[in-house]
Amino acid sequence: MMENRISFFECPECEDKPREACGVFGVFNNNGFDVARLVYFGLYALQHRGQESCGIAVTNQNGITGYKGLGLISEVFNDKILDRLDGTIAIGHCRYSTTGGTSIENSQPLMANYKDGRMAIAHNGNLVNAEKIRRKLEESGAIFQTSTDSEVIANLISRYGIQTGDLEEILVKTMQQLEGSYAVVLMTQKRLIGMRDPWGMRPLCIGKLDDSFILASETCALDAVGAEFVRDVEPGEIVFIQGREIRSIRGAAAEKPRHFCIFEHIYFARPDSFIDGASVYKARLEAGRRLAIEHPAEADLVVGVPDSGLTAAIGFSRQSGIPYGEALIKNRYVGRTFIQPQQKMREQSVDIKLNVLKEEIAGKRIVLIDDSIVRGTTTRKLVQMLKKAGAKEVHMRISSPPVKFPCYFGIDISSTKQLIAARMSIDEIRESLGADSLGFLSVEGLIKTPVGAPNGFCTGCFTGEYPITPDMAESATGCD
Amino acid sequence: MMENRISFFECPECEDKPREACGVFGVFNNNGFDVARLVYFGLYALQHRGQESCGIAVTNQNGITGYKGLGLISEVFNDKILDRLDGTIAIGHCRYSTTGGTSIENSQPLMANYKDGRMAIAHNGNLVNAEKIRRKLEESGAIFQTSTDSEVIANLISRYGIQTGDLEEILVKTMQQLEGSYAVVLMTQKRLIGMRDPWGMRPLCIGKLDDSFILASETCALDAVGAEFVRDVEPGEIVFIQGREIRSIRGAAAEKPRHFCIFEHIYFARPDSFIDGASVYKARLEAGRRLAIEHPAEADLVVGVPDSGLTAAIGFSRQSGIPYGEALIKNRYVGRTFIQPQQKMREQSVDIKLNVLKEEIAGKRIVLIDDSIVRGTTTRKLVQMLKKAGAKEVHMRISSPPVKFPCYFGIDISSTKQLIAARMSIDEIRESLGADSLGFLSVEGLIKTPVGAPNGFCTGCFTGEYPITPDMAESATGCD
Amino acid sequence: MMENRISFFECPECEDKPREACGVFGVFNNNGFDVARLVYFGLYALQHRGQESCGIAVTNQNGITGYKGLGLISEVFNDKILDRLDGTIAIGHCRYSTTGGTSIENSQPLMANYKDGRMAIAHNGNLVNAEKIRRKLEESGAIFQTSTDSEVIANLISRYGIQTGDLEEILVKTMQQLEGSYAVVLMTQKRLIGMRDPWGMRPLCIGKLDDSFILASETCALDAVGAEFVRDVEPGEIVFIQGREIRSIRGAAAEKPRHFCIFEHIYFARPDSFIDGASVYKARLEAGRRLAIEHPAEADLVVGVPDSGLTAAIGFSRQSGIPYGEALIKNRYVGRTFIQPQQKMREQSVDIKLNVLKEEIAGKRIVLIDDSIVRGTTTRKLVQMLKKAGAKEVHMRISSPPVKFPCYFGIDISSTKQLIAARMSIDEIRESLGADSLGFLSVEGLIKTPVGAPNGFCTGCFTGEYPITPDMAESATGCD
Amino acid sequence: MMENRISFFECPECEDKPREACGVFGVFNNNGFDVARLVYFGLYALQHRGQESCGIAVTNQNGITGYKGLGLISEVFNDKILDRLDGTIAIGHCRYSTTGGTSIENSQPLMANYKDGRMAIAHNGNLVNAEKIRRKLEESGAIFQTSTDSEVIANLISRYGIQTGDLEEILVKTMQQLEGSYAVVLMTQKRLIGMRDPWGMRPLCIGKLDDSFILASETCALDAVGAEFVRDVEPGEIVFIQGREIRSIRGAAAEKPRHFCIFEHIYFARPDSFIDGASVYKARLEAGRRLAIEHPAEADLVVGVPDSGLTAAIGFSRQSGIPYGEALIKNRYVGRTFIQPQQKMREQSVDIKLNVLKEEIAGKRIVLIDDSIVRGTTTRKLVQMLKKAGAKEVHMRISSPPVKFPCYFGIDISSTKQLIAARMSIDEIRESLGADSLGFLSVEGLIKTPVGAPNGFCTGCFTGEYPITPDMAESATGCD
Repeated sequence: MMENRISFFECPECEDKPREACGVFGVFNNNGFDVARLVYFGLYALQHRGQESCGIAVTNQNGITGYKGLGLISEVFNDKILDRLDGTIAIGHCRYSTTGGTSIENSQPLMANYKDGRMAIAHNGNLVNAEKIRRKLEESGAIFQTSTDSEVIANLISRYGIQTGDLEEILVKTMQQLEGSYAVVLMTQKRLIGMRDPWGMRPLCIGKLDDSFILASETCALDAVGAEFVRDVEPGEIVFIQGREIRSIRGAAAEKPRHFCIFEHIYFARPDSFIDGASVYKARLEAGRRLAIEHPAEADLVVGVPDSGLTAAIGFSRQSGIPYGEALIKNRYVGRTFIQPQQKMREQSVDIKLNVLKEEIAGKRIVLIDDSIVRGTTTRKLVQMLKKAGAKEVHMRISSPPVKFPCYFGIDISSTKQLIAARMSIDEIRESLGADSLGFLSVEGLIKTPVGAPNGFCTGCFTGEYPITPDMAESATGCD
Repeated sequence: MMENRISFFECPECEDKPREACGVFGVFNNNGFDVARLVYFGLYALQHRGQESCGIAVTNQNGITGYKGLGLISEVFNDKILDRLDGTIAIGHCRYSTTGGTSIENSQPLMANYKDGRMAIAHNGNLVNAEKIRRKLEESGAIFQTSTDSEVIANLISRYGIQTGDLEEILVKTMQQLEGSYAVVLMTQKRLIGMRDPWGMRPLCIGKLDDSFILASETCALDAVGAEFVRDVEPGEIVFIQGREIRSIRGAAAEKPRHFCIFEHIYFARPDSFIDGASVYKARLEAGRRLAIEHPAEADLVVGVPDSGLTAAIGFSRQSGIPYGEALIKNRYVGRTFIQPQQKMREQSVDIKLNVLKEEIAGKRIVLIDDSIVRGTTTRKLVQMLKKAGAKEVHMRISSPPVKFPCYFGIDISSTKQLIAARMSIDEIRESLGADSLGFLSVEGLIKTPVGAPNGFCTGCFTGEYPITPDMAESATGCD
Repeated sequence: MMENRISFFECPECEDKPREACGVFGVFNNNGFDVARLVYFGLYALQHRGQESCGIAVTNQNGITGYKGLGLISEVFNDKILDRLDGTIAIGHCRYSTTGGTSIENSQPLMANYKDGRMAIAHNGNLVNAEKIRRKLEESGAIFQTSTDSEVIANLISRYGIQTGDLEEILVKTMQQLEGSYAVVLMTQKRLIGMRDPWGMRPLCIGKLDDSFILASETCALDAVGAEFVRDVEPGEIVFIQGREIRSIRGAAAEKPRHFCIFEHIYFARPDSFIDGASVYKARLEAGRRLAIEHPAEADLVVGVPDSGLTAAIGFSRQSGIPYGEALIKNRYVGRTFIQPQQKMREQSVDIKLNVLKEEIAGKRIVLIDDSIVRGTTTRKLVQMLKKAGAKEVHMRISSPPVKFPCYFGIDISSTKQLIAARMSIDEIRESLGADSLGFLSVEGLIKTPVGAPNGFCTGCFTGEYPITPDMAESATGCD
Repeated sequence: MMENRISFFECPECEDKPREACGVFGVFNNNGFDVARLVYFGLYALQHRGQESCGIAVTNQNGITGYKGLGLISEVFNDKILDRLDGTIAIGHCRYSTTGGTSIENSQPLMANYKDGRMAIAHNGNLVNAEKIRRKLEESGAIFQTSTDSEVIANLISRYGIQTGDLEEILVKTMQQLEGSYAVVLMTQKRLIGMRDPWGMRPLCIGKLDDSFILASETCALDAVGAEFVRDVEPGEIVFIQGREIRSIRGAAAEKPRHFCIFEHIYFARPDSFIDGASVYKARLEAGRRLAIEHPAEADLVVGVPDSGLTAAIGFSRQSGIPYGEALIKNRYVGRTFIQPQQKMREQSVDIKLNVLKEEIAGKRIVLIDDSIVRGTTTRKLVQMLKKAGAKEVHMRISSPPVKFPCYFGIDISSTKQLIAARMSIDEIRESLGADSLGFLSVEGLIKTPVGAPNGFCTGCFTGEYPITPDMAESATGCD
């Protein structure tokens, strides 16, 4: 039932970056806010976590209702739809999914009737034992209409619900079944609930706006609605919000070693977010700074690849003393559809998204900074463009280690075959890129960049060491 | 969880007619047909049974996939989508649903994974005990994501599936739980299945195209794909189609008295269909003929209300000897959206859909035939228009009895308050319509009109006598 | 500059009928009507005259503004757009045009600034000397941005406008230049004007709603807004409406012999319209009656091809005494896009639009009536379908003469090569259609069918005799 | 006939920046390029010059055809449309226009037939005597269907065309009539032509791709298709391209003093473009550098307002030695539609587009750089956001002088009432913004920033001194 994903790596028009899966947001309103609009602006700020479908569900006296659609928040929702979504509690979700007719069915939040009423669930992450749970539930008669982990969780809740009426007990039991990464926001007709996996792999935080409570994947979504940051949800914690009360329980019996996804700091999260106490922006600056120490270069100008390499480039510049400058200009009107240039034009090595500032480049030795390399195709083109524009030397610096392994926990890096660093040595990569030198930040350096955060990161895509040994029958997937 | 229906009766822009719920179509291909296109043309011919959403599901080596959307078949599907729907077996559905954000989730076929693989279900009719079954299944842990009867049926199949691996046994047990009307097409990865409720309330027939088998709500859909009519599915029968084999079992233990919905003959079904051996066209002609006997009129011209009253008008004319003529001309370009005329214009008693042929009318005594009266609003306007155009007398004749009661079995007549015949005597109705005389066909006359069909019709909306006493906790609904 | 037309004859998904070009409507409001909505409902009733683009222009204190779009009136306009179109005078247009990117530019009304202010023009018909006038105007410096006759007329008005400020004189001079068919509604900032070509080829009538004046292509549009018919605009007449005054002048110096397009009565006009004193419905009944006299048949049932052959079929039935019956059922949900059936299915001789009532047909001798034959493809299929359904004999009767020649005056019959009657004798056609006998109404019979209208019809497509010898450099075209 | 503009200043959801009018692009193909795709990618790179409508016209053996639409290039065009636009020469246009039904009619290129054949024209700039010319042409019988300057130019060409067949003479005469700013690309069936106004107000340059010639508003469009920059079109020059030949003539008799729009360097043009020999990027860096000299500040961090203030911020940082840092993070998914937050939320002073990096700001003295201030609303909010995030001081620096006067030459600054600098002194502005200090770059400093460009800039919006005294009857407008 796992849908066929058009992997990011097979999609020529995409940026050569891994893809985040989902963003979640929830609000319990105690102040007369318009909850659907709050979720709308929260998801707006989380749009970078998923651009292909989104949805909002609200509770009111009639139960739980919602609206979902394919596209950006700003495309799917309008005033008329938001006006219909009146209520006290609301949750929302944005998602990176694959194209195709049935994908609307996989969009979230999932809304379902069960014995105790109605619930809605939105999920970020990836369960590695979802298939196993599904099969077990099917053995007892359940049916599955989507391929989302949210449906798995909803079914578990319903199953445990028939054994006990106590929601806390139900969720503790449910959590004991789940292996993998998850940050979940869940809503019954009375309560807003947040759960974070015991390894703390995906981010989830709590905010407050007047007397109302908010749950969000990142703090930037709190800022977007003017809410104050209260704290992060702890790994393995379940948070229950009802009215002005917030209650917390441990969901997982045994404590697990913390494994926060370091790629959130490298690329996914927004730089203005704080996660587990660390500033994402600072982590990127620090990665640039450490990169300058680990892999110094003799050069005239430090240039970042827009937009994801800019912060590390500033860090590199500050540490090395080499001036920082813009040299790649981004077209701000790049659409989501794509028209292939004629072969004749493609030979000109031009790029529809970026152009080079020749004046800044000509005759100079350039340090070019990017946050990561996956397939290497985009990087190769950029090095070419800089050289063609007259760069004397191009020293490539990457503010993360080489990506060599798949991710099983919510990031779309499905095939190791396409990872340039899985196939080549550093020097072979350098040559393939046409760069004069190449340096990657070390794993040891990287895990020191989230200054202020507790130790414990998942670096599986760099090292192949994962917090859970994934069931190989389950393929690595993106969102759910 | 029952969605809030905007009843047909509250929708000012609709025709003043009850609404059919759904059409179903299925094909098992043994001849290299393009099954999705076959279903497409089948649904095209069944479009009158539901115009608001539609879907097609197919089986192939990858399992079952499908595509659904809001709108007419011709709007939802195009060549590109159909090309993706490659397979051996296919089922399709068209549906009259309410507008609103979530209705896409209620569109069919429903596709689900269960213990024994994957299935797809499409349903026409209305279960009167769906809520009761849902509650029972929820007690054992099931969740429900839609308000369709198809989801109820899929869950029952899955529950019985864990007790026995034998699909025939599963479906017999499932059928024993279902109360209400249903014509179901169901598809597993290997078989195409048809089921019809024990009362035979909704139509379902079997056709053959070369060596391939077809199931359809009406025979007009067989004609549309060039298939031959084989026979009707019997009340309570379950038909299993696999390859070139067709197997039939009795689904319901005890035989029930036949209660075919007589409104299919009066209005819903296409006149070119045969149901249970009777020609719908002939039934309408016969209704007109009997009406002329029961309620003769002295008049100069017999006129039918386009399009649904035309056939009965011909029957009336043939019996009475009064010439048949067109007098109401329909605008063939009436769209689905509606702009309200200014009050000033509405006072002119004009109609955007119909115009009167004054020359045919002026100075004449008119017999105006329609198939049914629900609220009476449209009829009143037509009588006015004929009088304004110079008709000396207008004798209204209705080729069915007065509609006085709600339907619980798949027709959208939700509120008795709005039924003119539930509130007024015949003479009061006549006066309210402004007609010079008024006659309805009797129930006794009506049930003799489907010439060739076995006895046994549901006339609940006329008499209040239903085959099953509906659970009053369940409101009367349209489709599912 | 004449756009490349995808002729009707090359369009496989179209009905095998000629196509009308355009409908026009105008209103001068003296009663506080919402003029844009009046035009909307007027065009709604004229939609059969052109379905591919439409537009409305209004005058108000800011000058003249308008809105145009591709599609049906009900698709292009909504409440929001109509609310913006506030004013005192308004004109509208619906058009059959070809597909293609630039066609929006050819949609009407054309709005233009000229020396004396602003004007808007909408036109039905075809000028045969448009190219000649265009060249002449270009010689004096004019540019042309569209291929519409309206732009030609606007330029002539502007040229004559610089010689004299008197609009009546300007229009008389303009009319003296125009050769071909035209029914024009024209609006300046103060006046609503109607003009009809001296041969009276295209219809145009005057109506009154309270104290407001209306101009329309057909009287059915007057009925649609509740207006009373005042009279037809006379051939060669120019009507000026300002406030409560209506003034009429002769536009053409010498009177021309009347040549009203007889195809309006046969097929184009709506049956509920009256043109030049004749009821279109009566003309069709009469055509059927005369056909029964000219070409009687021994048969059991008279059947009309829906919808255009039904009225003549009733006329034939009344004259011959052979019972009238429905035997071809139309699918009321045929969309504008078209999916080609597989070859395998096409061999079944099924039709997506029509189905046969076998019961009515089987074993009977059928008289099948249609209003015209162009290519013969659809007719051939219908004869086949009737035979397959068991008809013993099929006697084809056509209520107009064989179409053998192109039309230069606004009807899309572009290529004589495709006209079956231009290539074959009557008997060859009969054989090609597979009919048992075939009869066409004679030209002499036909021109007697518009009972009450003055003599003088254009029968060019049957006889090749045209009121004006068209300049062969100008190809025969549809609308403008 | 001038359409009612919804001025930028009345549009709450827009950025508080002036708006550029249009971008133009043309190609004469000598190498088998797909010209429509070349124009597509050229316009893609010029999209910042106009986002509301766009169009492409091509010449081929059938004459000139084209396609236009409302929206971004990537939304209006797809492969199917581009495939239809086959030809040898092509021109394209993107435009900032107002919303409203008729605006499609004002989209460009304008295509027209005239005596000598067919032409297409696209225009950037604003003629200040367009109305006067229109009136004069109307006096001689011309009609105008749009409010574009392109239609004025096309009519002049046609008028002069009847006096002489020589296109060079025609265009010289045409140019003598035109007062205002214009960069025009024009295409006949054989030639591609570029014209730039005698004051050189709008940019236009020539490029070469293999043996094919290109004209473009900015050099970034040459880069986007891989073409080499040849030279700028000179003020008053007309360039004729035919095959491999390029011919140049002086279009204006008397030479005019050069007045290139300095706002192109400040904000409109893309930083990777070179105009009249000067790098836009360098001009912005230099503006930042000069600003640091003219208005130094004691501070800890230099921050630019994304995206338009970033380059000047780097320049300021380099000159002042104060570190450069990011502190405002932009949401990259801001759509074009806009949902208003609830009042309750608006009081939180949050912004849907920007968020503050508190860590970078807290306790620091900030220099905030923007390129210009128009109404001041956005700037005020940013200062507030920085203060709320803990900035100790905010020193606002603007890399251009105060905007006090309207523009008559193609930039949308329509109402002086809304210009904050037209109503307040510098110190009042500072106080209104809540900044600790405020400094604007001087006019003298500004005009030295386009290093390498010849002297002579239009600084009318700062000084009120314009190259041509605009006819006050003509209101200041955006594009045309």
